[in-house]
Amino acid sequence: MDLDTELHPDVAGLACLLGQWAGEGQGEYPTIQPFRYREEVTFGHVGKPFLAYRQATVNLATGLPAHAEVGYLRGVGDGRVELILAHPTGIAEVTEGTVETQPDGGLRLHLRSRTVAGSGTAKEVRSLERTVEVRGDVLRYDLAMGAVGQPHQHHLRAELHRA
Amino acid sequence: MDLDTELHPDVAGLACLLGQWAGEGQGEYPTIQPFRYREEVTFGHVGKPFLAYRQATVNLATGLPAHAEVGYLRGVGDGRVELILAHPTGIAEVTEGTVETQPDGGLRLHLRSRTVAGSGTAKEVRSLERTVEVRGDVLRYDLAMGAVGQPHQHHLRAELHRA
Repeated sequence: MDLDTELHPDVAGLACLLGQWAGEGQGEYPTIQPFRYREEVTFGHVGKPFLAYRQATVNLATGLPAHAEVGYLRGVGDGRVELILAHPTGIAEVTEGTVETQPDGGLRLHLRSRTVAGSGTAKEVRSLERTVEVRGDVLRYDLAMGAVGQPHQHHLRAELHRA
Repeated sequence: MDLDTELHPDVAGLACLLGQWAGEGQGEYPTIQPFRYREEVTFGHVGKPFLAYRQATVNLATGLPAHAEVGYLRGVGDGRVELILAHPTGIAEVTEGTVETQPDGGLRLHLRSRTVAGSGTAKEVRSLERTVEVRGDVLRYDLAMGAVGQPHQHHLRAELHRA
């Protein structure tokens, strides 16, 4: 992952995501106790029309690794992006949406799953929806999810800072 | 990715995959010219019941980044594994199969896709099938694919060595 390589024009509008981010978030869902987590996120690139993305969280109550996800954010033109993700919970996600540049140079992504596919042992996840906002050195996101028989609803919110 | 953390029992049988691998492969498909590539693969873990996997290839003719894929190999018991992958081509893959330990301590994985999901801009990929064999410090794999209107057939073969 060489950040000196020139960014592909199709992802030039996503440049402010590049690098490392760290911060804290909280999660809730009807089927579980609310929880807080520490998160680290990395966006890199190799000069092709996508960013490589990975994140990992640690549960703040236990200090143990919690969720992780990894994949690619594709710039596909006309303000459209696609996020292709693998989750260690047995879920693979194809998510699509829009990227908007803010007047202050910030960025707003809004993405909804096109397909959420699970392995034979995975819990049922039907829908994932992400809003990501970058302003300067702050990245905030919300994630909503429809899973385990529950309606699509808010699940995660976090604020990360450029590390 | 801390290789000093104790491996989760559900992936203990996959221990010989851990670490870095590098080598060369060749690809073919009815719709493209045959090609050769250099590949690097990493398997890591964080003490949970999966290995984190990533690979990237460079086209040997052009020296440029070619394919990449990233995701998780889950141990789910009874000699069964699940491979959850994201591809920067817009494809997400849920693949399932078996792991067999060889008499010499080597490993053989055979995996077939359960779901291959594509984004709106991705080329059509219907099926992916992988055979991976590890013997000592050598990892060989074959990949078959059904895509872009072609029947399921051989696509990639590579031999990697522990790096």
